[in-house]
Amino acid sequence: MWRILLVTAAGLAALAQSPAASNVRGAQYPQVHTDRRVTFQVKLPTAQKVQVMPGGGSNGLGKGPFDMTRNADGVWTTTIGPVQPGFHYYWLLIDGAAVNDPNSETYFGWARQSSGIDVPDAALDFYEPKDVPHGDVRMHWYRSRVTGLMRRAFVYTPPGYDANPRTRYPVLYLQHGSGESERGWTAQGRANFILDNLLAAGMAKPMIIVMENGYGTRPGETTQRGNEAFPDVVIQDLIPEIDKAYRTKTGRESRAIAGLSMGGGQAMQIGLANLDRFAYIGTFSGAGARNFDIATSYNGVFKDTAAFNKKVKLLWIGCGREDSLFAGSSTLHQALDQAGVRNTWYEGPGLHDWQVWRIHLHEFIPKLFQEN
Amino acid sequence: MWRILLVTAAGLAALAQSPAASNVRGAQYPQVHTDRRVTFQVKLPTAQKVQVMPGGGSNGLGKGPFDMTRNADGVWTTTIGPVQPGFHYYWLLIDGAAVNDPNSETYFGWARQSSGIDVPDAALDFYEPKDVPHGDVRMHWYRSRVTGLMRRAFVYTPPGYDANPRTRYPVLYLQHGSGESERGWTAQGRANFILDNLLAAGMAKPMIIVMENGYGTRPGETTQRGNEAFPDVVIQDLIPEIDKAYRTKTGRESRAIAGLSMGGGQAMQIGLANLDRFAYIGTFSGAGARNFDIATSYNGVFKDTAAFNKKVKLLWIGCGREDSLFAGSSTLHQALDQAGVRNTWYEGPGLHDWQVWRIHLHEFIPKLFQEN
Repeated sequence: MWRILLVTAAGLAALAQSPAASNVRGAQYPQVHTDRRVTFQVKLPTAQKVQVMPGGGSNGLGKGPFDMTRNADGVWTTTIGPVQPGFHYYWLLIDGAAVNDPNSETYFGWARQSSGIDVPDAALDFYEPKDVPHGDVRMHWYRSRVTGLMRRAFVYTPPGYDANPRTRYPVLYLQHGSGESERGWTAQGRANFILDNLLAAGMAKPMIIVMENGYGTRPGETTQRGNEAFPDVVIQDLIPEIDKAYRTKTGRESRAIAGLSMGGGQAMQIGLANLDRFAYIGTFSGAGARNFDIATSYNGVFKDTAAFNKKVKLLWIGCGREDSLFAGSSTLHQALDQAGVRNTWYEGPGLHDWQVWRIHLHEFIPKLFQEN
Repeated sequence: MWRILLVTAAGLAALAQSPAASNVRGAQYPQVHTDRRVTFQVKLPTAQKVQVMPGGGSNGLGKGPFDMTRNADGVWTTTIGPVQPGFHYYWLLIDGAAVNDPNSETYFGWARQSSGIDVPDAALDFYEPKDVPHGDVRMHWYRSRVTGLMRRAFVYTPPGYDANPRTRYPVLYLQHGSGESERGWTAQGRANFILDNLLAAGMAKPMIIVMENGYGTRPGETTQRGNEAFPDVVIQDLIPEIDKAYRTKTGRESRAIAGLSMGGGQAMQIGLANLDRFAYIGTFSGAGARNFDIATSYNGVFKDTAAFNKKVKLLWIGCGREDSLFAGSSTLHQALDQAGVRNTWYEGPGLHDWQVWRIHLHEFIPKLFQEN
């Protein structure tokens, strides 16, 4: 009897873990357990020491590195957690060298292709692919006059875009964070599935989402950050290109800009400097209050509060409470409130990571283009 | 004078090498020299031995592994070649463990995300991005009834697709090789740029290209190859989905199927079994003559030669002369010729690699849909 119960428990345990959705095709590991522990496993017979290293200090896998244990066949294993739900960058440290786990799909983060693991949240399925109509995500190439180089935008077109060739759509420009790329919002953030699900539920207006690469320099220019030309790219190259290639509504009240972290800063910088082009601005874990002055910051755009409140349909500021940038975001929000600048504040649990940004997008999107 | 000449030579040498187009943003290495030597460089202070390992025996980088040399800062370097032009998979061996070069973009090959290097061919620019109109490449998600799972197709829509909402287009179904994915034909093969350039030159009919993942199994089915359900996916799921989601011409004379290596075998298998759906078939380094019998192979489709020749607009067979599959491809072509089965044979220099397949696509495309 005891024995039978043991077998049953083992059977249940086997059912209670499965390969992560972030793995490459056919890879059995990493596996995610229903209690959100994660088991990593990799065959590296020649290595002396193998560890799992979460990407960055604000990572839902924890601090790391986590030592793996070798068996006689050179297979290394470790189980960690329970970990935070959501998408987390990681690498393997092979004798100290940070490399990708061959079992993982790669995700551009930390300025390189990195491993990642997506840990489901039993309470949140708004970003999962479901049996609803799916928009396409298009890779769109164009020549930038600002940089002199070819660029690639990722463009989400909503379900029905092709079937309704006379319909025009509002546009959200949506930016990734530092060290990431135009692929981040779909591969890591699942922005397309978030939109598909919101649209199917009638909770969002059909819209186009443009995800570009937030880097760019002028020809011959060498800069420290490598993104100094990006605002000009958006205004002089990207918006005209998108308005030409897709059926957009081109008025300012049909155009939004948002982003996460560095991209949130860019959304504030580009959006607030171009209120003739944008009526909606969102900054996800990307706002700071350093040297903030209501009269002079952002070229004085907040000074005439009444004019600002009339012109800007939405200034949305969000941050996770465990994010080191939380205080700055919160302080900015409070300073704006105190000055009478209308803004929408969103705080919730979470680190400086993609699960927070998925939630931010899911909160932000339903507030866009309601008059369209 | 001697000294001045030396400096000048060094200056010229510095100009004569540049970061590979296959690198991640900002990575200075690998660098390709104008004489097609390649310099790899990576900082790995903790490693005891680092080597460059070309992916597979039929690789334009050569056999490998190539030892790298360490400097005092832990930077490892090697220069190899001159190598073959084109795209080549590779990994770094860190103390024997095959891992990605953090400087490289990743490319799905060998059933994992792998490093790759693209070495330009001074004599061939048909696959380079040029200042011509660019088609979009769309990621299209749909539910497969055959596998029960969500699948993703990459779909090239030609320039003008959106601007001409009443125009319908013929479709080429184009498959990758073993261990690759739906991303291969654009990321490694540059199929989109090849089409853009052919269309700009008036050398091809505007067409849609559908690139799917050549793997798939039925629910609960465990198979050795993992691709047994793919023919059913194409016929029962993919073609109906594409004909519904895009403005296709749906007659058999507006539908082609082709692929490379494993995908070339799939093109033959699926195409020849479904001549009511396909009038054009292409196999790139993917045809074999093992057990071939003109009367019985492919379910006897070649037996009635006259009927076959009337029905099939193009049966295109290509292979590189240095490919180990060359003899099989050539023998199949000769057997078909001998039996009076009309087929188009293409041979040229080259290994079993992407440069050959770019050339094959560039040769194949202009022969499609000429009556459309």
